[in-house]
Amino acid sequence: MTDAHVWPASAAVGADGAMRVAGADLRALAAEHGTPAYVLDEADLRSRARAWREAWNDAFGTADVYYAGKAFLSVAVARWVHDEGLRIDTATGGELAVALRAGVPGEAIGLHGNNKSDAELVAARDAGVGRVVIDSMAEIDRVAAVAADGWGGDPGRRAPVMVRVTTGVHAGGHEYIATAHEDQKFGLSVAGGQALAALEAVLDRPELELLGIHSHIGSQILDPAGFTLAARTVLALRSQLAALTGVLVEEVDLGGGFGVAYLPGEVPLDPVRIAKDVAATVADACAELGTPQPRISIEPGRSIVGPSTLTLYTVGTVKPVTLDDSTVRTYVSVDGGMSDNLRPALYGARYHAALVSRTSDAAPVRARVVGKHCESGDIVVHDVDLPGDVAAGDLLAVPVTGAYGRSMASNYNLVPRPPVVAVADGVWRVLVRRETIDDLLALDQG
Amino acid sequence: MTDAHVWPASAAVGADGAMRVAGADLRALAAEHGTPAYVLDEADLRSRARAWREAWNDAFGTADVYYAGKAFLSVAVARWVHDEGLRIDTATGGELAVALRAGVPGEAIGLHGNNKSDAELVAARDAGVGRVVIDSMAEIDRVAAVAADGWGGDPGRRAPVMVRVTTGVHAGGHEYIATAHEDQKFGLSVAGGQALAALEAVLDRPELELLGIHSHIGSQILDPAGFTLAARTVLALRSQLAALTGVLVEEVDLGGGFGVAYLPGEVPLDPVRIAKDVAATVADACAELGTPQPRISIEPGRSIVGPSTLTLYTVGTVKPVTLDDSTVRTYVSVDGGMSDNLRPALYGARYHAALVSRTSDAAPVRARVVGKHCESGDIVVHDVDLPGDVAAGDLLAVPVTGAYGRSMASNYNLVPRPPVVAVADGVWRVLVRRETIDDLLALDQG
Repeated sequence: MTDAHVWPASAAVGADGAMRVAGADLRALAAEHGTPAYVLDEADLRSRARAWREAWNDAFGTADVYYAGKAFLSVAVARWVHDEGLRIDTATGGELAVALRAGVPGEAIGLHGNNKSDAELVAARDAGVGRVVIDSMAEIDRVAAVAADGWGGDPGRRAPVMVRVTTGVHAGGHEYIATAHEDQKFGLSVAGGQALAALEAVLDRPELELLGIHSHIGSQILDPAGFTLAARTVLALRSQLAALTGVLVEEVDLGGGFGVAYLPGEVPLDPVRIAKDVAATVADACAELGTPQPRISIEPGRSIVGPSTLTLYTVGTVKPVTLDDSTVRTYVSVDGGMSDNLRPALYGARYHAALVSRTSDAAPVRARVVGKHCESGDIVVHDVDLPGDVAAGDLLAVPVTGAYGRSMASNYNLVPRPPVVAVADGVWRVLVRRETIDDLLALDQG
Repeated sequence: MTDAHVWPASAAVGADGAMRVAGADLRALAAEHGTPAYVLDEADLRSRARAWREAWNDAFGTADVYYAGKAFLSVAVARWVHDEGLRIDTATGGELAVALRAGVPGEAIGLHGNNKSDAELVAARDAGVGRVVIDSMAEIDRVAAVAADGWGGDPGRRAPVMVRVTTGVHAGGHEYIATAHEDQKFGLSVAGGQALAALEAVLDRPELELLGIHSHIGSQILDPAGFTLAARTVLALRSQLAALTGVLVEEVDLGGGFGVAYLPGEVPLDPVRIAKDVAATVADACAELGTPQPRISIEPGRSIVGPSTLTLYTVGTVKPVTLDDSTVRTYVSVDGGMSDNLRPALYGARYHAALVSRTSDAAPVRARVVGKHCESGDIVVHDVDLPGDVAAGDLLAVPVTGAYGRSMASNYNLVPRPPVVAVADGVWRVLVRRETIDDLLALDQG
């Protein structure tokens, strides 16, 4: 492969030009399951989960890695990442239900959210989740009320909580920015004093057990500096809390947002490198502060499931469009679009694509891969070179669609959502089946 | 109401501060159906459908109005707009299936799409849809092949088609821009000659009946000038085709994109005003060209269903956040978000919100209404004044969510999608039921 970073580890192109994933020919997979389909390389996903766990455990001696289920969660995926020694981070009752359905013990599950419902807090209590991440002052009372008679069926157990704080570090892509205050819905401000106040309020509540402090700085981050800067702020807050209350909290969670490569030539954040950078910072900062090091946890999602998956499409219409500068852009329409991958329309996200059903010697053309929705912004890949003979019936693969692909999918234009098909050792199986028109009509009461 | 344009026509606030829609108290509706919920005023929707039909029939003597199902389509809505004398514009097999399920005759349905599948074309043929809008050169052969043995069960009938052209007029919001060529996936260029070539190619095919020419210039348009400019271009093309082939096509479709008011103070495009403007332009242009006037059709969607519907939310967390300029923004979290209204995140769309469950004398605060999803961009209303005592348990209504609300909804964070509840004469009924976690798990194969 020309760029190993963007394709699942097992992806390989045969002499016939057809791509195999884990030994399975994508032409055969498409023939059996139809297109569009998300194709997930199970071994690749497991290997990335292990890589994050091992790198952070190696760097810190011990660390907890929570798989961020919002990126993509199905029963099988929850089981696999738990098999690989990870815990599961959930953000709603739905994500919690899937993790529990997978047999993940409540203790290994965390619950996030800026606006958890009472029903969600009760479900978390009944499952005995290992931590609830408190996001506002009001939530302290609400969690305490839910935990009044214990936690996880144990009347003597307190609700295990962390407090999510905002450090003023925002990161995304290649750079980070730092401000004092953050204009966003999540967390409690360190600079404004709300974070410290919340930590003290938690310590005052007999129904709550304060595990530690949580910080999440952004998404798709490629620059390690944001993580180390946020870590220093959180460690200083931990030290400040200890000085004021005598309680040195045990854990610091640095959240997720570890970036991946979406395009050939991009370099993902390496789990070993970022773990070492953060470990060095934590050691330095704790030495300066004169406090023992905390237990560290992180929440990677995209960096585990994103590159494990590609979306397989069939080409329909091919249309050369002459632009005002007299150049030609070839619009290649596929049988999906913004309903199965919202990120290009939502974030202007850029993707790669390749012809994966045959060889071609045709000279490349400048192509834009578009979907079938009634919207001119329905773009799958903004700019990619494709063989000039790309034609109806060809299969295209768009890599790195495992995160926020199926999880953000819609039925826009009443298009049923594609299946997620996992491949391992040449054998495929359906994790999430394809929707049907009948599924959509089942909700319609006429 | 302070601004009639943004609320359903029947919305009224009682002395108790609670909003009624079609006589139904939203507190009672929320108690029975839960929140979030889309609440649709049936009479308002029907009245807007009638207004568009009557205005355009009055201005032109006769005209066809197609309801653009992509905005929101359910079986009941399809039936209602057809009852009101409209036809239905569909863009996929799913939308076609819902229109047919509603009992709308195929003859009153159109099929759009830049990348129709063979299955969709076959479904359109079998249903005898009244028109297929051809979007590319390649589609001419494909539609002809599907129609080789007739249309709608009649072996002697040709496939009724229009050709979608790009006029170089792009419009959206208050302004329009005009270019020679368009860098988008839809249609065939007038300036580049592809539109004329496609029209001639259709005339050459014995399986196809050329009904006319189709133009669609954009979305949420408030400036009539884009429509009249595009109409002139299409009429000139029609005249040019007649001069070359002797065939003067009967119909011109000017598409949709008629803008609505989302915020207090905004003024929607008035159906009577735009119909008169376009009628005057068509009369002028045809007089200049020396051709009889065509039959005109249009495709409003948002302007019929958008303002008919509001989304009802329950407030959860309320959090004051101090910004870097020392002002405070109050983040009001509700129990939905980008999963039920994607437009703020996708387009930066601005909405209004109001407390609808009680009165309040509290001084207003600058609020941002946010959802419960794990994403800082999960914003429902960017900026709105809400009473300073807004608190957990309050009901908020966000108006004008009928178009591209439920139709673009997702299960992000595994949040089940809200129901669509229609109200008429004080009685509510569920058009689309609320999803459940079990619905989501039914697709998960474990």
